Amino acid sequence: MSAEQLTALVNALPEGVVATAPETVEKYRHDWSRDPRAGTPIAVVRAESTQQVQVALRWASAHGIPVVPRGAGSGLAGGASAVDGGLVLSLERMRAIEIDNASRVAVVEPGALNVEVKQAAAEHGLWYPPDPSSFEICSIGGNIATNAGGLCCVKYGVTADYVLGLDVVLANGTLLQLGGRRIKDVAGLSLLKLFVGSEGTLGIVTRAILRLVPAQPPRSTLVAVFPTARAAAEAVVAMGRSVRACLVELMDHRAINVVEDFLGMGLDRSAGGLLVVQSDAPGTARTAEIEIIETVCRAAGASECYLTDDPDEGEAFLAARRAFFPATEHLGSLLIEDVGVPVPLLPDLLDGVAAIAARHTTDIPVVAHAGDGNTHPNLIFDGSDPAARARAEAAFEEIMALAISLGGTITGEHGVGRAKRGSLPAQLGPEIMAVTRRIKDALDPAGILNPGAAI
Amino acid sequence: MSAEQLTALVNALPEGVVATAPETVEKYRHDWSRDPRAGTPIAVVRAESTQQVQVALRWASAHGIPVVPRGAGSGLAGGASAVDGGLVLSLERMRAIEIDNASRVAVVEPGALNVEVKQAAAEHGLWYPPDPSSFEICSIGGNIATNAGGLCCVKYGVTADYVLGLDVVLANGTLLQLGGRRIKDVAGLSLLKLFVGSEGTLGIVTRAILRLVPAQPPRSTLVAVFPTARAAAEAVVAMGRSVRACLVELMDHRAINVVEDFLGMGLDRSAGGLLVVQSDAPGTARTAEIEIIETVCRAAGASECYLTDDPDEGEAFLAARRAFFPATEHLGSLLIEDVGVPVPLLPDLLDGVAAIAARHTTDIPVVAHAGDGNTHPNLIFDGSDPAARARAEAAFEEIMALAISLGGTITGEHGVGRAKRGSLPAQLGPEIMAVTRRIKDALDPAGILNPGAAI
Repeated sequence: MSAEQLTALVNALPEGVVATAPETVEKYRHDWSRDPRAGTPIAVVRAESTQQVQVALRWASAHGIPVVPRGAGSGLAGGASAVDGGLVLSLERMRAIEIDNASRVAVVEPGALNVEVKQAAAEHGLWYPPDPSSFEICSIGGNIATNAGGLCCVKYGVTADYVLGLDVVLANGTLLQLGGRRIKDVAGLSLLKLFVGSEGTLGIVTRAILRLVPAQPPRSTLVAVFPTARAAAEAVVAMGRSVRACLVELMDHRAINVVEDFLGMGLDRSAGGLLVVQSDAPGTARTAEIEIIETVCRAAGASECYLTDDPDEGEAFLAARRAFFPATEHLGSLLIEDVGVPVPLLPDLLDGVAAIAARHTTDIPVVAHAGDGNTHPNLIFDGSDPAARARAEAAFEEIMALAISLGGTITGEHGVGRAKRGSLPAQLGPEIMAVTRRIKDALDPAGILNPGAAI
Repeated sequence: MSAEQLTALVNALPEGVVATAPETVEKYRHDWSRDPRAGTPIAVVRAESTQQVQVALRWASAHGIPVVPRGAGSGLAGGASAVDGGLVLSLERMRAIEIDNASRVAVVEPGALNVEVKQAAAEHGLWYPPDPSSFEICSIGGNIATNAGGLCCVKYGVTADYVLGLDVVLANGTLLQLGGRRIKDVAGLSLLKLFVGSEGTLGIVTRAILRLVPAQPPRSTLVAVFPTARAAAEAVVAMGRSVRACLVELMDHRAINVVEDFLGMGLDRSAGGLLVVQSDAPGTARTAEIEIIETVCRAAGASECYLTDDPDEGEAFLAARRAFFPATEHLGSLLIEDVGVPVPLLPDLLDGVAAIAARHTTDIPVVAHAGDGNTHPNLIFDGSDPAARARAEAAFEEIMALAISLGGTITGEHGVGRAKRGSLPAQLGPEIMAVTRRIKDALDPAGILNPGAAI
């Protein structure tokens, strides 16, 4: 890469789009995974339009320059860690949101935050359900790149279930316009669904058409305290057979205590497990559903249950769960897991994680989107102690291996990124890896899109 | 293909798996589209296991023999029309169904009928929602191949939304085991979703893991009569903003009369449009939801509304809609459309289809999964009259062009098959067609899987 070639890119785009100043570039090296191995890009392109993304990708293709796409930078798996000598292509400036009330869709640029889409929909009495915990700071583009989940997806599904259309720029600058404002469409291969969750390795999304639904009904909340995390997990399995709760979150003993240390809200420190469950069944059915959930929890051994129909009180109960990330973050360096298993194996996963924590003397509190079998063990360690880091990294790998051995996945919603790439072949096996590689080569033959991430 | 080579295949599989007798082969030449251009295969392989599918595909790959996969043969787009000199690979004998009640999944072989999966799930108090109109005779394998929709998918989604895992045999005989009993999984590319809806062109599904949900609550039914189909369609658009009905079916004036001719059930022959809407909101919310729907229908101009909470009476109302296919089938030869548009453009599509019917003097009654904007204009003509056939075929093409011009799709749920392949490029455009071809080549480089279908 000569200075002259880079100047050609700078000149091909409006003033201020391409940043090369080291202090600016530095800000785009990491996502929230804070990967110490993140590289230093030669420039950051803060695109303002699809056409500018095309210009940047044509230039990168012509010169064989790797391109790391980036939304809000809130990823937890290093999917947006920069690459030495590459471009970071930030979509943060492309954040237009248009609500088509008649078709009940949002037409959204990738830099728009999830919360902004929710708010824009709400102004029309509509709802965009996907709700990653980071919904206030994460971008729709990142949500699409990782096929993000969240708390309500136990009832309402994940990002892929709401994507009706995508504009995608391929590595060579070609623009594909996939899908549209139509709800059902089976014409041709499901390329739309292939791009969702591809973590920027197949193309760069520059516009999405998202399905909206009527506003969510009011929610009732139940908090149940269990003697063990296993008992709480068994309640989750049982309730899934009879009701469709819209939120089923679990905290293990250590997570309860970490949050109590942080918030001092009066949680029962002796509890082995805690469930927060919500129902949004309409009308009087909500009370009936919550009562069924309470019965199931008590049958599974819950010692205490608190119920409320009051939204504010419900949100207060949920605050303990939401405080988990901030509560762990200030305790040390973090490795954040998001392994998932079939729901009935959740108790085994929780027991196994506890055993791994003990074996590697690493603090690993666990919260879970339990209704989906998707867990977040957060590995806390002293980042300044190489031995502690090594133990945490060993535990991180073992947790993924455990999930695979239980018929699960190394990532339920954060994506593979760079943090979990080494474990992907163990989950998928050589045949699926080979097919993955063939599809990657078919779409990005020079391999310039997000190299080192995901596949 | 020498007789000796074919004998090698016969001998490589158990007795009775490979059929070559002309009278047997004849039965496997057509699906329900009754394509007069269907070819004659050299043999039919009625596989009993994944391993037998692998044997057949390895043999076909070695000799460059095209393979047409086939489920129950109920497809309406010619996706299973046989190819001269090829194999038909029937999955009709692979129909095991196992319900995993703890994980709430059905593990199903592709030949199992949709209704059999529903029944097996119901025995455990669970529900497999996707319900194509043909659910009593169509196979799960075919549902997956076409990403089949149905009546309740307006609320509950389509086949792809329920597929958690797939065993797929590639053209070269390689077995991929994608996904599993886990609900959320974002590890690697969404190959699972790519195979759903690929109409047998990328691989042959030999096992599926399907997500189940708790049994559907009771339904209430509303039938509303409108002066015009446009008014009915406008009611559909309006109700979608405030409620999530679980079924929203529309019949136009001509469809009402065709069904009344057939059933004589007392439908209003003067009606311009008729809606059948169901709510399965739990408890008392159901009555509230149906009342909202009635208010919306009356505001849109409905002259009469009939409501019932009685399931049998509700099913009787729905009988008119369900009778549409049998009512048209006996009137002549059929070309069955399933074009879709954004919901607000449904009125324009209905008007446009009526104009095309008049211009080509072809009888085209229309029913629609209106809540999804997905319509079934059935073109009825005298198959023994070449001029009538030519007019119907011209109208068939024009309806697809109309749907595309309205931002819609040539197929919402039946698939492209061989019937609509010519119109696919007009919808997708050259760039998407080129990417489709690259993916096809990456997975089936010799092009032996369902050649001539879909892509």
